[in-house]
Amino acid sequence: MRQVSITGVGSTRFGRFPDQSIIDLAVTAANQAILESGIPRDQIGALYLGNFVSGPLTGQEVLAGLVADALGLANIPCTKVEGACASGGIAFRHACLSVSSGVCDTALAVGVEKMTHARTPETTAALNCAMDNRSDGPSGLTFPGLFGIAWRLHEARYGTRREHVSAVVRKNKRNGLRNPLAQMGADLTDEDIADSVLIADPLRLFDCCPTSDGAAAAVVTLRGQARDNPLAIDVLASAQTRGSARIAGHPDLCTFEATVEAARRAYEMAGLCATDIDFAELHDCFSVAEILDTEDLGIVPRGKGHEWALEGRTAVDGSIPVNPSGGLLAKGHPVGATGLGQIYESVMQLRGIHPNQVKDAAIGLTHNLGGTGVACSVTILGRPDA
Amino acid sequence: MRQVSITGVGSTRFGRFPDQSIIDLAVTAANQAILESGIPRDQIGALYLGNFVSGPLTGQEVLAGLVADALGLANIPCTKVEGACASGGIAFRHACLSVSSGVCDTALAVGVEKMTHARTPETTAALNCAMDNRSDGPSGLTFPGLFGIAWRLHEARYGTRREHVSAVVRKNKRNGLRNPLAQMGADLTDEDIADSVLIADPLRLFDCCPTSDGAAAAVVTLRGQARDNPLAIDVLASAQTRGSARIAGHPDLCTFEATVEAARRAYEMAGLCATDIDFAELHDCFSVAEILDTEDLGIVPRGKGHEWALEGRTAVDGSIPVNPSGGLLAKGHPVGATGLGQIYESVMQLRGIHPNQVKDAAIGLTHNLGGTGVACSVTILGRPDA
Repeated sequence: MRQVSITGVGSTRFGRFPDQSIIDLAVTAANQAILESGIPRDQIGALYLGNFVSGPLTGQEVLAGLVADALGLANIPCTKVEGACASGGIAFRHACLSVSSGVCDTALAVGVEKMTHARTPETTAALNCAMDNRSDGPSGLTFPGLFGIAWRLHEARYGTRREHVSAVVRKNKRNGLRNPLAQMGADLTDEDIADSVLIADPLRLFDCCPTSDGAAAAVVTLRGQARDNPLAIDVLASAQTRGSARIAGHPDLCTFEATVEAARRAYEMAGLCATDIDFAELHDCFSVAEILDTEDLGIVPRGKGHEWALEGRTAVDGSIPVNPSGGLLAKGHPVGATGLGQIYESVMQLRGIHPNQVKDAAIGLTHNLGGTGVACSVTILGRPDA
Repeated sequence: MRQVSITGVGSTRFGRFPDQSIIDLAVTAANQAILESGIPRDQIGALYLGNFVSGPLTGQEVLAGLVADALGLANIPCTKVEGACASGGIAFRHACLSVSSGVCDTALAVGVEKMTHARTPETTAALNCAMDNRSDGPSGLTFPGLFGIAWRLHEARYGTRREHVSAVVRKNKRNGLRNPLAQMGADLTDEDIADSVLIADPLRLFDCCPTSDGAAAAVVTLRGQARDNPLAIDVLASAQTRGSARIAGHPDLCTFEATVEAARRAYEMAGLCATDIDFAELHDCFSVAEILDTEDLGIVPRGKGHEWALEGRTAVDGSIPVNPSGGLLAKGHPVGATGLGQIYESVMQLRGIHPNQVKDAAIGLTHNLGGTGVACSVTILGRPDA
C-alpha cells in the first residue's frame, strides 16, 4: 500500500445553520479543503461522504453525488458511507484507501450532518437508528442511558464519581472557548454541571454533547506528490473495526472492543505505541465516554481515566492532552461530520497553528465511535518531520 | 491490483416479506453466499452493505454492523454504502477493491432493502431522497416523470413508440416467469400493457418496476485462492462513476453519462469491447430505461434500442440477451439489493445453471444506475475458462 498525506482540510463552524442546506455545509468545507490543497479539481479521483441520517432528517440521500456536482468534480466514483457516529472517520479511511491502493492519487473525504432544524422527537428517533431496534430500542435504552450504565459500572469498579466526570466537562467546555469553530464552549463550575438538568441518571445536561449542524473535509494525496506542500501532514495509520451492535452483546460495558481493536491495529500500522501519541481528539459524546476511551486507546492506564482527568493530565498542558478542540461536548457533534472534524483539528495541531495549541505536537490520534460501539475508526497523523 | 473472483452468492426471492426484518433478509442472503463459498467466517476481512433508505423506511441504520453481528463475523470493518438505486453495485465494487488492494483476501458484499411494509406516500417520499430536492423535487418530477420525458425525446429522435417499449415489458415479464426469485413475472399482451393505468404519460403501470423487499450477497476472494473452487466466477472489471445529480444537469436525456463512462472504464479494465458481452443484467427501473441503457452500454447501436427490442434481439435466445432474470420490471427492485441481485443472476448464468439460461454464456455485464443518473456501477464477470 502506498503512503498518503493530507494536503488540505476545511471545516464549517459547528452549530446551528438554519439558512444553509446540508449540501451548502458540505460544499463549504470541501471547497476550503480543495483550495488549501492547491490540487486541481479534475485530479480528484474519488469522493467519500460520511453522513448518518440525512434521509430521515432532511429527506435527501445521494449526498455524495450532489456534493460532487456542486463542487464541479469529474465523473468519479462518489460514495456515501454510513456507520452511525463513526461515518466521518469511515469516509476519511476510504479516501486514504483509494489513494494507498492506487485507485487514484488524490481523494476527497467530506463529513456532514444537519440536525438542528428538526424537532427533538424527530432527532431522537433519527439518532436511535444507530442502535439495534429489535432488542435495545424496545428496552428504552437510549444512548445517554447506555453511558449512564457505563459510568455506574466504572464507579463500582474504580470509584469514578461526579467530580471526576465533571473534570472532563470543565476541561472540554473550556477548551471549546478557545476554538472559534466550537458550538458550546463555556467556563463552568462543578456546581453548574452538578445542578444541570438530569438526562439519564447519573448523566446531566452538561455531560451530553449538543445537537449540531456542520461539515468538515480533507484532501488525501499520494505522499510523494505532497512533498513540496508545507501544509501537508502524514497519515500514519487509519483503522476501522466493528464491535457488538447490541448493548447486551458487550462482555464489559466499561470498554468498547471496537476501540481497543482499532487502536491496536492503528498502532501496529504506524509502528508506534500509545506513549508516542502527543494528543488525541476522541469521541466524548458523553463526558464519561472520554474516560472509557482514554483507557481503551491505551493513552491512560486501565481504571485510571477518571483520576487522570481530575489531575489535569489530559488538559492541553498535561502529559496527554485530550480533546484540545473542545471535543464533541463543546465543539458539537454534527454526527457524520465529527470524524472529519477531528481530522481537521488534528491537522491544525500538527501544523502548529491551532488556537488551543498543544506544545510540540508531532503525533496525533483521532477516535470516532458509532452506535453502541458497533463501528469505530482510529487515525494516527504525524508531522512530516516527526 | 490483484485479481478477484466470486466464490459464493446468495439471494432471497424478491417480493413481500411482512414477517421478516431487513436484517433477517440480509442475513439469509449473506449466509447462503458464505456457505456456498466454503470460506470460514473468520477469514472474511471486510463487509460492505448496499442500502438506500433503511433509515426513513425502517428506522434502522448501522446495518453493516448489525448484519456482521448476526453473521458472527470478526471485528472487521463493516460499512454501509449508499448511492440510491446503485447502492448494491457500489457495495460489490468495494468488496472487490478490498481484496484487489490487499486489505484482505476475502470480502462480503450484501445488498438489502425493505419497502413493501410502508404506505405508498412514505415509499414515494423515501424514493424521492434520490433526487436533488432543491431543484428537481419542487418541480414535481418524480422518477416516472423523468423516464416519461426521456421516452418522448427518444420517440422524437428515433421514432420509439408504445409497441417498441411494450416489447421490453413483454420480454422481461416473461423472463421473470422462468425465474423463481422474481416477484412479478407475467405473460402479458400488448393490450394488457397499453390498457394498464397511466402513471406518468406515456409510462403505464406495467412500464414500472414494483416495490420490493429482498436481499442478495456475494463473497469475493483473491483469485489465486479460488482456483480449486468449481463454482468460482472471475470479476473482470468493476467500475463506478457519477453523473449529474439534477435532471437539468444532463445535456441529453436520451443518455446517462454515468453509464457511458462506467461502461467505457469497465471495458478498458477487462480488455474487452461491447461485442464481447454475451448477456447483460441492466437497470430497467422503467421499460424505456432498458432501451436507453442498451445504447449507453454500447451493446446495441445508438438509436436502435427500441428496434432491437421489438425484433427480439435482446430476448434470451437473441443476439444480446438483456435481463434474462426478468430485470427490475419482473424480478423486482428492492433498491439496495438490486445491484447484488444482478451479480447473483449473472453468476448463475456463467455457471450455466440459470433457470432461464443464455446459451454458451461466458462473459456477462451488470449495470446498476442510481437517482437521476447520479451514480452508476458496471461490472463485467467471466467464466474462468472464457
